[in-house]
Amino acid sequence: MDDNMMEYNVSKLTSNLYLLRFKDTSTKYFEGLWEIPEGIMYNSYVYTSNEGAIVFDTWKMGLGNEFLEALRNIVDLRDVRYIVVHHMEPDHSGILKTLVEKADPIVLGHPLVKNMAESFYSVSMKFRPVKDGEEIVFDDEKIIFYHTPWLHWPETIMSYITSWKILLTCDAFGSYGVFKEVWADELSGEDYERYLWYAKKYFANVIGIHYEWVVKNLEKLVSRGVTPNLVLPSHGLLLRGDPLDYMYKKYKSWGHGEPEQGKTLLIYTSMYGFVERTVKIIREYFSGLNQDIDMIGFTDSNRPSISDVIGKAFDAENIILVSATYDADLYPLMKHIASLITRKTPRGKKVAIIAQYGWGGKAGKILEEMMSTQGFKVVGVVEFKAGEEERYRDKIIGLIESLKK
Amino acid sequence: MDDNMMEYNVSKLTSNLYLLRFKDTSTKYFEGLWEIPEGIMYNSYVYTSNEGAIVFDTWKMGLGNEFLEALRNIVDLRDVRYIVVHHMEPDHSGILKTLVEKADPIVLGHPLVKNMAESFYSVSMKFRPVKDGEEIVFDDEKIIFYHTPWLHWPETIMSYITSWKILLTCDAFGSYGVFKEVWADELSGEDYERYLWYAKKYFANVIGIHYEWVVKNLEKLVSRGVTPNLVLPSHGLLLRGDPLDYMYKKYKSWGHGEPEQGKTLLIYTSMYGFVERTVKIIREYFSGLNQDIDMIGFTDSNRPSISDVIGKAFDAENIILVSATYDADLYPLMKHIASLITRKTPRGKKVAIIAQYGWGGKAGKILEEMMSTQGFKVVGVVEFKAGEEERYRDKIIGLIESLKK
Repeated sequence: MDDNMMEYNVSKLTSNLYLLRFKDTSTKYFEGLWEIPEGIMYNSYVYTSNEGAIVFDTWKMGLGNEFLEALRNIVDLRDVRYIVVHHMEPDHSGILKTLVEKADPIVLGHPLVKNMAESFYSVSMKFRPVKDGEEIVFDDEKIIFYHTPWLHWPETIMSYITSWKILLTCDAFGSYGVFKEVWADELSGEDYERYLWYAKKYFANVIGIHYEWVVKNLEKLVSRGVTPNLVLPSHGLLLRGDPLDYMYKKYKSWGHGEPEQGKTLLIYTSMYGFVERTVKIIREYFSGLNQDIDMIGFTDSNRPSISDVIGKAFDAENIILVSATYDADLYPLMKHIASLITRKTPRGKKVAIIAQYGWGGKAGKILEEMMSTQGFKVVGVVEFKAGEEERYRDKIIGLIESLKK
Repeated sequence: MDDNMMEYNVSKLTSNLYLLRFKDTSTKYFEGLWEIPEGIMYNSYVYTSNEGAIVFDTWKMGLGNEFLEALRNIVDLRDVRYIVVHHMEPDHSGILKTLVEKADPIVLGHPLVKNMAESFYSVSMKFRPVKDGEEIVFDDEKIIFYHTPWLHWPETIMSYITSWKILLTCDAFGSYGVFKEVWADELSGEDYERYLWYAKKYFANVIGIHYEWVVKNLEKLVSRGVTPNLVLPSHGLLLRGDPLDYMYKKYKSWGHGEPEQGKTLLIYTSMYGFVERTVKIIREYFSGLNQDIDMIGFTDSNRPSISDVIGKAFDAENIILVSATYDADLYPLMKHIASLITRKTPRGKKVAIIAQYGWGGKAGKILEEMMSTQGFKVVGVVEFKAGEEERYRDKIIGLIESLKK
């Protein structure tokens, strides 16, 4: 095992609950899509008892040997009685077949899991579907399963270990990032800020489109009396105390699509630097107001992470898009980015659009159509020939000011 | 001047024609869009005479000092009588204002240039529009200007120096890549192959959408008796002899949208490795036939250059797209790639589509619609649940075989 690339830890969380954590620094694009230079961790949990063990989720496909090695630190494989599949995404269910073949446990999951597992992994297993609210009593411990669809797969469930008030949440409350700490409350200062950013980015990237389901599922859990002291997600750090309260509050806010008041994000695509001159006008305007504006530019020398763009766009109140025109169409990178914004971030945000062209205008209208048909509030479009930003200064400022109305 | 990043050369091409070449290894994305680890060169040409000098195009915006330094090696700036703007894209017209202010030449260009130049660079200049076929006689040398629209900007013109039979072609016949050689015929073996690939990729990336205009413009030039011995593009190596004949033939073929017979390109996007299993079936099938297939995969660890994808797609006869599904939609990276393929490469290619999903199928239909509405011939769509590639093996092979019909 390469300690650098294939590191895992086993941590004891309570007298009979363990965390098996794999630290992945070799996956460069989460879901093949999101840039994650910060890496990601896969959390599997093992509950041990006199009656045997329950494994909650596993690790990413391909890590079978490492997973079994880690698991054997805790239990004899023959003592694994159940494996709970919180959902079928292969970063959690990836070792299912290996584990079934080695330990022959009963697989518990949403009714949809059986068919998906058989397709994904050609696995023959003892499967027992769990209903919403179904409970099992295992060595005197009561564990309840809740259906929490679209967080972020339709067959997602969560497990609640009642006596300890522990909620295992799968992707919800997860985070990017590789940390040596187990719990979020062990971090402070910059590390904690970094964690919070990774958690927000992760939420936007991965759960994004399903944000409204966060509210539905959290309200449902509360109505069923689920008030966890510990929240154990399948990625990132574990939550208790202040970070748990904070993240619960954040999830509720994100789930309602609430923006950070006054947060403005400017995203621009520039081919030859003309767009950057317009961006400079906007930067100076905000600087004169002594207000922050976050600017992300895609240029001939800079290609930022789209995972960051979506993370920042999610809770922005206002978005300013400044784009070049390309082949009498919207600049392709802006089209890709705008398409991801409309899919991943809450509708209803105010959007100001500026498009620049060499020969003829068209990109502004296309971008306006893309955003407004998806429910974003386009406050206006200013479109002009590259190099004429000074002539359009008043219109540009007027457009930016109309974001505040 | 940093020799590594800001290297230029001055080369004498004929008794009174010079090449001023800037080697750009710091631009990472040409047009802000295309990955160019191979770099790019900007070619400006200077014709000297007893009556003064003519400068044909310049370099990229921001390189004013270097350009003037190079130009002063050849002429006194006060002797620059004309500057010819072949088109207004800022990688060629970028030093226009600087040169006008230092040398006060007459600017020659398509009638559209005046307004664009004034917008782009706020330049006051002595401008003289040239008509299609208009000629100037300068120190006994006749130079004819031809309008060659959409190669690749609408106001593109070419200059023909008649006694030497030299055609200055702006972007047409250009190439990516930084070379120490001046002429393409100075390369051999792998270097020449590499150059040809850079030229094709450049053509597809930059001229792509306007490929049909290549034929119109080349036929027009032939009909006007333009049969150059030397072709001098504004990027890359210069052409004479065999490489000139070869590239002329290629441009005609590309301009007609002709594919390489039997060339199949497979592009896939995979989130967790399931798509790669299907790709393996296709690879084995081609291997059994002893036929080549080019495969480009976007995965959680690999993000190929989209500039390469488009370069390879341009002259492929058949394209196979294999995609994951994402949030009940087409996987976003595949959408971005497919959108660029439909814009940049000749319609009429045969396309086979395979889509895989976890929960429900939809991506295949979306991709089919994207390609077929843009004039690509979708021979079929096979869509199935991830992991079921063996059950669908016959359908997959059948789909691939239908590309040959």
